[in-house]
Amino acid sequence: MKIGKATIPTSAICTSDDEHIVVRGHDLCADLIGRMSFSDYFWLLVTGQRPSAMASRVLDATLVAITEHGLVPSAQAARMTLAAAPDALQGAVAAGILGCGSVILGASETAGRLFLKIDALAREQGLSLTDAATQVVSDLRASKQAIPGYGHPQHKARDPRVARLFAVAAEAGSRGHFVALAEAVEQVLPAITGRDLRLNVSAAIPAVLLDVGFPAEALRGVPILARTAGLIGHLTEELSNPIGFALSYQATREQRYTGELPAGVTIKHAE
Amino acid sequence: MKIGKATIPTSAICTSDDEHIVVRGHDLCADLIGRMSFSDYFWLLVTGQRPSAMASRVLDATLVAITEHGLVPSAQAARMTLAAAPDALQGAVAAGILGCGSVILGASETAGRLFLKIDALAREQGLSLTDAATQVVSDLRASKQAIPGYGHPQHKARDPRVARLFAVAAEAGSRGHFVALAEAVEQVLPAITGRDLRLNVSAAIPAVLLDVGFPAEALRGVPILARTAGLIGHLTEELSNPIGFALSYQATREQRYTGELPAGVTIKHAE
Amino acid sequence: MKIGKATIPTSAICTSDDEHIVVRGHDLCADLIGRMSFSDYFWLLVTGQRPSAMASRVLDATLVAITEHGLVPSAQAARMTLAAAPDALQGAVAAGILGCGSVILGASETAGRLFLKIDALAREQGLSLTDAATQVVSDLRASKQAIPGYGHPQHKARDPRVARLFAVAAEAGSRGHFVALAEAVEQVLPAITGRDLRLNVSAAIPAVLLDVGFPAEALRGVPILARTAGLIGHLTEELSNPIGFALSYQATREQRYTGELPAGVTIKHAE
Amino acid sequence: MKIGKATIPTSAICTSDDEHIVVRGHDLCADLIGRMSFSDYFWLLVTGQRPSAMASRVLDATLVAITEHGLVPSAQAARMTLAAAPDALQGAVAAGILGCGSVILGASETAGRLFLKIDALAREQGLSLTDAATQVVSDLRASKQAIPGYGHPQHKARDPRVARLFAVAAEAGSRGHFVALAEAVEQVLPAITGRDLRLNVSAAIPAVLLDVGFPAEALRGVPILARTAGLIGHLTEELSNPIGFALSYQATREQRYTGELPAGVTIKHAE
Repeated sequence: MKIGKATIPTSAICTSDDEHIVVRGHDLCADLIGRMSFSDYFWLLVTGQRPSAMASRVLDATLVAITEHGLVPSAQAARMTLAAAPDALQGAVAAGILGCGSVILGASETAGRLFLKIDALAREQGLSLTDAATQVVSDLRASKQAIPGYGHPQHKARDPRVARLFAVAAEAGSRGHFVALAEAVEQVLPAITGRDLRLNVSAAIPAVLLDVGFPAEALRGVPILARTAGLIGHLTEELSNPIGFALSYQATREQRYTGELPAGVTIKHAE
Repeated sequence: MKIGKATIPTSAICTSDDEHIVVRGHDLCADLIGRMSFSDYFWLLVTGQRPSAMASRVLDATLVAITEHGLVPSAQAARMTLAAAPDALQGAVAAGILGCGSVILGASETAGRLFLKIDALAREQGLSLTDAATQVVSDLRASKQAIPGYGHPQHKARDPRVARLFAVAAEAGSRGHFVALAEAVEQVLPAITGRDLRLNVSAAIPAVLLDVGFPAEALRGVPILARTAGLIGHLTEELSNPIGFALSYQATREQRYTGELPAGVTIKHAE
Repeated sequence: MKIGKATIPTSAICTSDDEHIVVRGHDLCADLIGRMSFSDYFWLLVTGQRPSAMASRVLDATLVAITEHGLVPSAQAARMTLAAAPDALQGAVAAGILGCGSVILGASETAGRLFLKIDALAREQGLSLTDAATQVVSDLRASKQAIPGYGHPQHKARDPRVARLFAVAAEAGSRGHFVALAEAVEQVLPAITGRDLRLNVSAAIPAVLLDVGFPAEALRGVPILARTAGLIGHLTEELSNPIGFALSYQATREQRYTGELPAGVTIKHAE
Repeated sequence: MKIGKATIPTSAICTSDDEHIVVRGHDLCADLIGRMSFSDYFWLLVTGQRPSAMASRVLDATLVAITEHGLVPSAQAARMTLAAAPDALQGAVAAGILGCGSVILGASETAGRLFLKIDALAREQGLSLTDAATQVVSDLRASKQAIPGYGHPQHKARDPRVARLFAVAAEAGSRGHFVALAEAVEQVLPAITGRDLRLNVSAAIPAVLLDVGFPAEALRGVPILARTAGLIGHLTEELSNPIGFALSYQATREQRYTGELPAGVTIKHAE
């Protein structure tokens, strides 16, 4: 069935024959394997260009920052899935990645789009970053939308990864424009929302990446790639230290059934 | 419900509080972000130890080797999925990863286990690698099991990534024991199977990784992590150059329905 | 880590002990197994109530209508995934389900929400369904949003499943309010959009289901459940008639690489 | 790339044009929608034939039996995933389905294959079911393989669904051959394993389904389809009664970090 205008599929990423594999214009074997780090290669695949030394350093820092944060929900889902289906590592990784959604890790992209909107407004109307941030954040607030990338359930003071990412970006020579913009948002938030929401890692990541030229469309890919590495770490540990079912048991130890019981049936809760 | 012996969940990977995130015994912000590449961090997460310079170089080479090979089935599945569900990038990545199974990318692990078995046999019985390989491969053949990691649908001569990975490993100072073992298998294969199956990338990866101490249990994670990066490249391209539905259309242009038709119904195949 | 207000998990769906399993207030073994069809049980699980005979008939009709439509993208993705990972049927099903997104099967829910919005407007402002439909559709059009559930890539005249679903609902005694509303939208569409977009199955499903009291929040579950059955049909066929890799081969037979080639490299396209 | 022998894709399931959709030889609109239950349609899709009244009743009973059992690991994984990615219901369903693996729900298939093996042995060698069961189970035990479908973490006495499924099958007129075989295995297990493992639902399902002609290759599809309905029930409840993050919080309340701490860092465990 033809959905949309049927076309010949085209792609600028890769071609190959018996002897050669060409990726983004380079010979994979002669030019890339052993000559480029995996994260630089990720940049090349996504953008078509090799990263600058500055971009390379910043991308690595963001990936390392977001890879691992303990037994978060996606790590739990992955470990429970491996416990139930130990033959299919790929399924357990997939189950974990499916938790990289709008609420948890997807904020890197939505925060990035928020920053681009504020930046565009500032440039179009000749506003300071603070004034542009005030206007955009107030609009979001008026329509009862969340402000992505600010506030953290555990790190009430600023998420410690934020300062470190900003420092790495500065050391690497980044201009810091979107970092300043992210901090402008942080400064105007308390007055607008009445809550002292501090920058978290999901806002710091797009700030430093946009500053080094990473494309906004691919921002959501950064936490997904990073978390995949973290999930593989957890799943490798699960093989020798299985806790998937223990997590599931603990999760429901205090659960309460709020429905009805059939006449004459009682449920013993010793479990 | 208690499945297995209910326990307190334990993990040696990460702990944190308001101010600190500790990963594998290191302070994430002070010691890791900006001081370690993403692939070295992956090694640390999986093994608990920082990689040597040799291991770091070899791991990067294997990841780069396996990340991207064009519009392979998993890239197609991912692009079709994004076309149908464009709001959920994580779902399209997951759909692609689910194709990293025993037939396609999982061979890295099964080939690795084959090499370990041959190695153990050689050591236990004082056999040469060639003799041990002959024995184990003959047993596999007798029980009609596939030999993972040899032969490739496109690269009939040796997959060009193989020589490059072996060269990088040698340059990095690797001992080359499992490389020699993988080549011993390649040499005995024609006589045993009657087919000239050459080493492919899925056998080269475990050979060079086992030589630098990467754990066998985590071998399947290497192609999964790598392919995640490749999928994100494809999905980012899909956003601006949508071909998901075109692929699906092309795939079925010549399909044939082999079932029956109800009396009186004819199907027009113009589509 | 506490995300949101930590609470004791509660659920009204199921409780159990050694001897009994209680679902939605009924004893699973004594009252449900062998006494209720699977689709009625689905209704009970989602709503907490047994369906009326009318609701039961309509739900079955919608599920049968949307289960199977040949080698659509999600069936292709599932079959390619099983070909690559034959040991993990659940992974291939999951890959197919991930294609039930906003563009393809999710329209059942968005069309349902559109109908509820038109219905609310008609009641609040005392408008005819046609006037309310005109207003809401014009607003959607003005903000360049798609009209979910109208038009079909293959069934240019009205999707044949639409008339059949409407007939089954009428036979079952449904009031037909949302059916009338869905047809009102169909009538006003050409004047507003300039295109003769006819009702497709994704609008007919919510129309007949809302008429019999199915909850709007669960509408997206109907195509997902149905398509799962269809995918299992395809995957069972794939085991004896493997076409996953053939689909993938056909899909890219005419693909074009639009990137560059390294100096001195030519790619032979015989494949 | 051609993987395997490239072929024209064929399928006997469905064909269609503008006006007709033909499924398994029937006109979907004229013959199936409104004339067949969803579970009968599932049987038709998988087998190519309409089910007998007996088969229809037994299939419905097995689906209802396995759809729902409270906050099991797959329901937890799905609810955590929806909490993190509320826009992608299909992703949360997929995450739950990925937990239908060899340990948890996949036992329906492996138990079915065990029964077929015992049945074949009994017929080939003229053994009683008890003698054939003893031989096959002893072999499994000797090679340290699990006996799928016997024993349950909660239902230590026989899982109550077993007797109910057997009763429904008998009422429906099933011959009860594989039921007798499943009970023969149950009887020989204590002497062979030293443990009083009773039939659970995952052995009862293949027993009653094989007796009515359901194909062994599709057995794993039954719990997957059923559980999809159960997951949609849970996810619909999650939308109005969100507990995904509460489950995750409870799961780790008592977790212990067993790794090291960097010099000078202490972690406060108030959380």
